[in-house]
Amino acid sequence: MNQELRNHADQIVREVIAAVQPDAAVKRALEGMDFPGRVLLVAAGKAAWQMAKAADDCLGSRIESGVVVTKYNHVMGPIARFTCFEAGHPVPDENSFRGTQAALDLVSGLTEKDTVLFLLSGGGSALFEKPLVPAEELQDITGQLLACGADIVEINTIRKRLSAVKGGRFARLCRPARVEAVVLSDILGDPLDMIASGPACPDTATAEDARRIQKKYSLRMSEAALKLLDTETPKSLDNVHTQINGSVRELCRAAAGACRRLGYEPVLLTDQLCCQAREAGSFLASILRTHAHEGKSLAFIAGGETVVKLTGHGLGGRNQEIALAAASGISGIFNAAVFSVGSDGTDGPTDAAGGYSDGATCRELAESGLSVDAVLQDNDAYHALKKTGGLIMTGPTGTNVNDVAVALLKSETAF
Amino acid sequence: MNQELRNHADQIVREVIAAVQPDAAVKRALEGMDFPGRVLLVAAGKAAWQMAKAADDCLGSRIESGVVVTKYNHVMGPIARFTCFEAGHPVPDENSFRGTQAALDLVSGLTEKDTVLFLLSGGGSALFEKPLVPAEELQDITGQLLACGADIVEINTIRKRLSAVKGGRFARLCRPARVEAVVLSDILGDPLDMIASGPACPDTATAEDARRIQKKYSLRMSEAALKLLDTETPKSLDNVHTQINGSVRELCRAAAGACRRLGYEPVLLTDQLCCQAREAGSFLASILRTHAHEGKSLAFIAGGETVVKLTGHGLGGRNQEIALAAASGISGIFNAAVFSVGSDGTDGPTDAAGGYSDGATCRELAESGLSVDAVLQDNDAYHALKKTGGLIMTGPTGTNVNDVAVALLKSETAF
Repeated sequence: MNQELRNHADQIVREVIAAVQPDAAVKRALEGMDFPGRVLLVAAGKAAWQMAKAADDCLGSRIESGVVVTKYNHVMGPIARFTCFEAGHPVPDENSFRGTQAALDLVSGLTEKDTVLFLLSGGGSALFEKPLVPAEELQDITGQLLACGADIVEINTIRKRLSAVKGGRFARLCRPARVEAVVLSDILGDPLDMIASGPACPDTATAEDARRIQKKYSLRMSEAALKLLDTETPKSLDNVHTQINGSVRELCRAAAGACRRLGYEPVLLTDQLCCQAREAGSFLASILRTHAHEGKSLAFIAGGETVVKLTGHGLGGRNQEIALAAASGISGIFNAAVFSVGSDGTDGPTDAAGGYSDGATCRELAESGLSVDAVLQDNDAYHALKKTGGLIMTGPTGTNVNDVAVALLKSETAF
Repeated sequence: MNQELRNHADQIVREVIAAVQPDAAVKRALEGMDFPGRVLLVAAGKAAWQMAKAADDCLGSRIESGVVVTKYNHVMGPIARFTCFEAGHPVPDENSFRGTQAALDLVSGLTEKDTVLFLLSGGGSALFEKPLVPAEELQDITGQLLACGADIVEINTIRKRLSAVKGGRFARLCRPARVEAVVLSDILGDPLDMIASGPACPDTATAEDARRIQKKYSLRMSEAALKLLDTETPKSLDNVHTQINGSVRELCRAAAGACRRLGYEPVLLTDQLCCQAREAGSFLASILRTHAHEGKSLAFIAGGETVVKLTGHGLGGRNQEIALAAASGISGIFNAAVFSVGSDGTDGPTDAAGGYSDGATCRELAESGLSVDAVLQDNDAYHALKKTGGLIMTGPTGTNVNDVAVALLKSETAF
């Protein structure tokens, strides 16, 4: 193993994960923000408590009051002036509705000078909800949509109309107050209307779309629900300002910064990687082979979420497969390394966050009688990388904004 | 279809293919070369006639005499002062041996002021050969190696030792004359010792390696052949200067130049792409999605040779699969396009050189009732791209230096 490259990989991983922590993201977002009137806080999602805590750390008593709705066992302690709710996820329950109602009560009667600080993270779709039909009917309609093979856009089009807060309706209820939304994204491409079904994001689908979907799948719905389909969702919102923070883009940006500080010239390839893990590893390796002898220190960065093709019964994860698949392509190029990590610290069903390989990995595996191809065929990257010291361990990180893979080339003259 | 992007793609393809024509490659290589003494020409391989013709065009009677050995039906006419042989490929025959012997006669008795212009292209391994064992034994040993699953490096290690010209031996026979080798590469990474088994390239394998392989597979060989394994091949050659030209690197360089002239900033990703075609298409699309709204005109270039995974019975080729697979990823991004072509003008078993897709392709396919996923599953890219006008047709180009894929982004402000 090239110990210098391995140390650099660990350093980059540490910086990247610190940068996308919910608290770091909230602190960055609040920097320089000013508030002419009252400030109320609403936080919803799996990271709601950390985000609310960070806002409290930054703004203290400037925030008059707050409501936090998160998953069971995700409240880490009381926060002064804030009411914390724990609720059902992924299926909403009575506590989701109670917490959401408390938030709606909080933001009613505000003036245009006031600000609602709306902190949103993954899981918000279930945790932040006030259905306009009985919970049983909502569940039945969702079940019908899933059973008839409706796609996620179709499902959201219907569900937004059956909710008092989704599809931009929460932000409309905050009017005339300003909504400052800080969103932690865990969906590729940061589609704001998809994250928690977009409580503060205009809905692009129309009543006509909703009716078409209802007819297409012959959905059984009550008269009341059918009438809701015809009720328009907000098509524009002039009181909302949104910062997507701590997204995979942030992850890539943090990787670029960390690489630059270590002397690498960062090249952002993509923040929307979605191909097969092992093929992504091969592609990254072919990039390194091409540039290996240019005398530059380069870092090619690809964020996103790849897919593992299951062909065996071994242990591994998509990040470990990327690193291992790259190993054959960079074998013998001792100034090259590829590593990849999941920002949540858990790659597949393993205790590793991801994997690392370099120009020596193939030879080291061969000495243990292992070939990269056979290991990948068995989806057993974990045990192979364990042998070469190529596992990256971080422990659970408390956030989840997809993965980042980095292909490093250290200038040979630097050795 | 975005007609401007399509026109750019066609323009880039034209320039790229012109740049890697054997004659263009030879002309570039000969530029500025000077010759103190006599000049003799030896050309071997499938493009030998075109390369010899180009050298004749450049240097005329400065070349005293020449021998050309190419495939049957590949001599397009006589060239003054050159003797042309047509011979067997991929299995060498008596004409291969006759042509090669004529070349050896030509380069004997030269002085150190003299130059052998050695023009090599794909297929040279069969066409340029003088076996040191009877042809039947050579064939038998090759058969044994193939049957026992020996890899290409092992096969070459043995075969170089059974040949009078492979593994650097041709260049050694030219001594004390200088050898100016111009190589058209069709193997990824341009491994000089692999192209035509490296007649002008030092052999890195040793007699010990050869003996080890013979024992490993219990190869049956005559006493004479066994003795040849112990005869060392050249480990260095101080009379050779090699230019790899018209390789996939050249293809990428030409693509970069053509893109720059059209106003795109070229980014060379790799010239050694070797992953699955459809995954490469997905990766390129994810790069375009990330950079689509930066307001720059960019061209990401990936040369190499991808692999098609056969899952259906349709018609297509690896370049068409790259383009089609990218279509879903760039759907709706109307300033983005991905195209890929084989430099030989034939992609898979089709009459197309490759394929083109852009932000409108998916919608156009949907209007014909086709989905990208289903088409790829059936390996039927040809018929789908035919519908969208996405086939790139060049006809056979007379050269083969792998493929090049280009992902184009046109600055939106330029529209």
